[in-house]
Amino acid sequence: MWYYEKKLQYPVRVRECNPTLAKYLIEQYGGADGELSAALRYLNQRYSIPDKVVGLLNDIGTEEFAHLEMIATMIYKLTKDATPEQLKEAGLGDHYVAHDHALFYHDAAGNPWTATYIQGKGDPIADIYEDIAAEEKARATYQWIINMSDDPELNDSLKFLREREIVHSQRFREAAQMLIDEKDKKRFF
Amino acid sequence: MWYYEKKLQYPVRVRECNPTLAKYLIEQYGGADGELSAALRYLNQRYSIPDKVVGLLNDIGTEEFAHLEMIATMIYKLTKDATPEQLKEAGLGDHYVAHDHALFYHDAAGNPWTATYIQGKGDPIADIYEDIAAEEKARATYQWIINMSDDPELNDSLKFLREREIVHSQRFREAAQMLIDEKDKKRFF
Amino acid sequence: MWYYEKKLQYPVRVRECNPTLAKYLIEQYGGADGELSAALRYLNQRYSIPDKVVGLLNDIGTEEFAHLEMIATMIYKLTKDATPEQLKEAGLGDHYVAHDHALFYHDAAGNPWTATYIQGKGDPIADIYEDIAAEEKARATYQWIINMSDDPELNDSLKFLREREIVHSQRFREAAQMLIDEKDKKRFF
Amino acid sequence: MWYYEKKLQYPVRVRECNPTLAKYLIEQYGGADGELSAALRYLNQRYSIPDKVVGLLNDIGTEEFAHLEMIATMIYKLTKDATPEQLKEAGLGDHYVAHDHALFYHDAAGNPWTATYIQGKGDPIADIYEDIAAEEKARATYQWIINMSDDPELNDSLKFLREREIVHSQRFREAAQMLIDEKDKKRFF
Amino acid sequence: MWYYEKKLQYPVRVRECNPTLAKYLIEQYGGADGELSAALRYLNQRYSIPDKVVGLLNDIGTEEFAHLEMIATMIYKLTKDATPEQLKEAGLGDHYVAHDHALFYHDAAGNPWTATYIQGKGDPIADIYEDIAAEEKARATYQWIINMSDDPELNDSLKFLREREIVHSQRFREAAQMLIDEKDKKRFF
Amino acid sequence: MWYYEKKLQYPVRVRECNPTLAKYLIEQYGGADGELSAALRYLNQRYSIPDKVVGLLNDIGTEEFAHLEMIATMIYKLTKDATPEQLKEAGLGDHYVAHDHALFYHDAAGNPWTATYIQGKGDPIADIYEDIAAEEKARATYQWIINMSDDPELNDSLKFLREREIVHSQRFREAAQMLIDEKDKKRFF
Repeated sequence: MWYYEKKLQYPVRVRECNPTLAKYLIEQYGGADGELSAALRYLNQRYSIPDKVVGLLNDIGTEEFAHLEMIATMIYKLTKDATPEQLKEAGLGDHYVAHDHALFYHDAAGNPWTATYIQGKGDPIADIYEDIAAEEKARATYQWIINMSDDPELNDSLKFLREREIVHSQRFREAAQMLIDEKDKKRFF
Repeated sequence: MWYYEKKLQYPVRVRECNPTLAKYLIEQYGGADGELSAALRYLNQRYSIPDKVVGLLNDIGTEEFAHLEMIATMIYKLTKDATPEQLKEAGLGDHYVAHDHALFYHDAAGNPWTATYIQGKGDPIADIYEDIAAEEKARATYQWIINMSDDPELNDSLKFLREREIVHSQRFREAAQMLIDEKDKKRFF
Repeated sequence: MWYYEKKLQYPVRVRECNPTLAKYLIEQYGGADGELSAALRYLNQRYSIPDKVVGLLNDIGTEEFAHLEMIATMIYKLTKDATPEQLKEAGLGDHYVAHDHALFYHDAAGNPWTATYIQGKGDPIADIYEDIAAEEKARATYQWIINMSDDPELNDSLKFLREREIVHSQRFREAAQMLIDEKDKKRFF
Repeated sequence: MWYYEKKLQYPVRVRECNPTLAKYLIEQYGGADGELSAALRYLNQRYSIPDKVVGLLNDIGTEEFAHLEMIATMIYKLTKDATPEQLKEAGLGDHYVAHDHALFYHDAAGNPWTATYIQGKGDPIADIYEDIAAEEKARATYQWIINMSDDPELNDSLKFLREREIVHSQRFREAAQMLIDEKDKKRFF
Repeated sequence: MWYYEKKLQYPVRVRECNPTLAKYLIEQYGGADGELSAALRYLNQRYSIPDKVVGLLNDIGTEEFAHLEMIATMIYKLTKDATPEQLKEAGLGDHYVAHDHALFYHDAAGNPWTATYIQGKGDPIADIYEDIAAEEKARATYQWIINMSDDPELNDSLKFLREREIVHSQRFREAAQMLIDEKDKKRFF
Repeated sequence: MWYYEKKLQYPVRVRECNPTLAKYLIEQYGGADGELSAALRYLNQRYSIPDKVVGLLNDIGTEEFAHLEMIATMIYKLTKDATPEQLKEAGLGDHYVAHDHALFYHDAAGNPWTATYIQGKGDPIADIYEDIAAEEKARATYQWIINMSDDPELNDSLKFLREREIVHSQRFREAAQMLIDEKDKKRFF
């Protein structure tokens, strides 16, 4: 089970109200390769992965919820002072009439999150490659969002998150190699 | 952010391998009114709800993740020793060819979880009634599953969870009344 | 069964061709908390709700179809004279290439309607709370759309519809209380 | 707008409690080619179809709601006395834990209804061919269900409904021909 | 099985980088009535259609993949030199943060392709009417896109594709008539 | 564009009518990690991947369509002689009332195929890891199906297909390494 502490993993600051940027950032909240996908994917795989990898999935899965909270905080800060008219100009008029200033788990185009974005196969090597791919895709998404952003304070947090994805990808690669080595060992003896 | 402690909110025991029961129980893992819906709904609403209610949503949302973990543990225990043939007889053959013994966020009929199950309107009273309805629906689902189960040890945990939904419903009703009273007060002065 | 009479429940007038407003209004046609959701939710619940509440669901469900028709008429009037170029400027270019000037059951962001927006649990109290929540969410959506609209004639109709949601919510609350009282009475004797 | 009269278009009788048959019949309630699809498709197309065809769409669309109500009544009658155990044996255990004895707009496999099953193009000839195809597909579905059923009383109602689809298909073919003839006339002069 | 030859069925040229036009054109890539729908629908129906029609479905299905490739090439050419800022102005900012310059099977509104757009009933006449309707709907979509386009070179290719849909519709009508005639003959003898 | 030759990539034989096995095998037709996902994923990525990898994606994508056709042929052979009653006993009654003996792009649980199963990021390394993961997941699915099958003739074809996934995975790993090496080289100079 989890305990909540009222702090963010890394500070989140935004320069100014910027709903256009919020619109793109929501891709990492409820999009295919966003933080919700990551957290739910890893925590779900814990039950069928070899014991050696459970801790890794647990740690990264829990951290991804902290990332999700950072993204939520960013979106909130970028939009909380926006008028309906400003949301409309930012392409968020459709979000506004459905959700007002509330967040929602959809991607930048408005597609609601679906579990079909993720997978759990029960095959350890397939699952870990799913996870490496997930981290690489999340890294790419952060890059595309940073390319769209001219808010240096927000970018500082986004670069932290992008860096974390690279670290996670590396750790999943090590886990994949360990699983492959073990499988080869079993074949040999 | 959250910290993970390796323990369950309430102990989970099952009498025996019982994939048929697991098939129905998965409704509370990835179904419309299951624990994933609950956790994600409340944590998402935190950003647009009045300050007084944020703590309530945060506490219950975090607890629902602990419930999700209990459900996952139940399903794992009910299925981990099942052969493919037993899964097939339990109506889980379709789950097996897609996921082997891994869990997945779908309902008892196999529909993947979707964010369209939940809502965040930005209107505090609408959001809290969404939450009351959610708890009542989850309570009903636990009842229907208990009706299907003849495992007394599992039922002990399920009754704990059903009871928690009733408590949450009560707390959301109090929050609704508080929000309505405040709104009336504002109108009066 | 139903009989159609060629009139609207309440007159619908719009000041001028205004596809931007139509784009937002479509949230109430095919969106999560729109009139289609309402009508289909209540009529579906009729078969498992206690007899005393069937008439209420039937009446409100039938009325919601009349509201759906009013919304359709509004959208039609707001867009029928719009050129493809005007639809494009209003953010309806994607609607146009798929549907020309035809209506479609999607929300303001273009997501097609899905039955996952609604629920029928078979538990009377859960179902009625689902309905109260639905009315509160629909009320909120009307408010957000009115906030986006500067067409006083359209707003007159939208305010009528918002008012109806408030009345329905009140009637569902009375039904909920009646069901709770009856349940308590049964426990007592 | 519509007026409800408490009677069915055609009487519905079932020989006995038969949840297995109900499971298959639900295909016509919330399935791709079922009565909900039909009703919503035709009523939606009314706003962009030439005036001459509006009445036809209105009449058939309204009738399809009467069919939907007949299907609902059949499913209710086939399942209302079934125990959870009987529902489980009929392959409706997953429906039961989610909905108890309530109906829901999903198909026989449990997929929730989605507006992606239907279309409205704004092009009269495309729309009418969509409608002919819809009627032919509904006719086929009734046939497959009748093939599965050994309840002569239920089959009487199902044959009535299958016959109505054939009549509707014929009327849509006439409308298609009329629209094609008119288009050719315009080209000639 | 299929062999790939590196050429297009018909040449594709675009006058200039035009992401706005690409946004609308993607309706024919991953939209309800687009080329992916067409190809997958016909090839799937091959297994249950009478032998006489298998070749027709095979030919047209294979040709639709060639059309899909033409559409992909058009979208690629219209967007490959666009900056993120230009994509944003064209309403493709949400596509960019999810996919950069990659294509994806979604419609102009961003809805991912789903097999619910198509059908296979096993009833030959129902299936062929599904196909006629599909061709008429695709023809209409090409028309709406041509109406949005002022690129004469692109329009040349689009008109070729629209013309092919008309030819396919005609061939499916002939197949429908043949199937109806055969059915009548069987009834007679 | 593609040319069709009326032969299968590898012969497909089945020992006997076996709709239960067909039900599980359909996971590879329209399931998350099935052949349709594979073919559409690779062919879509061709437009934004570096030139050196286009041929590889084109070859493997085209081959996956040949696999899809093999799977279709297997399902057809396993079900073509099955009565409605046999389909019902095999858990395919829901498929039958919707599709008769026609195939459809859904998974073993009946979920229609959706493009959300696949991804195209525009980032070459992310895309190739998506592809490696896809092949590993497809390999696992073949293994789970083989575990369910006691038809030695069918298993011969399934093992051929499983082997192809392993070869594809290897080729994608080589492509990933090549892309990583090139990226490193660019950083160096």
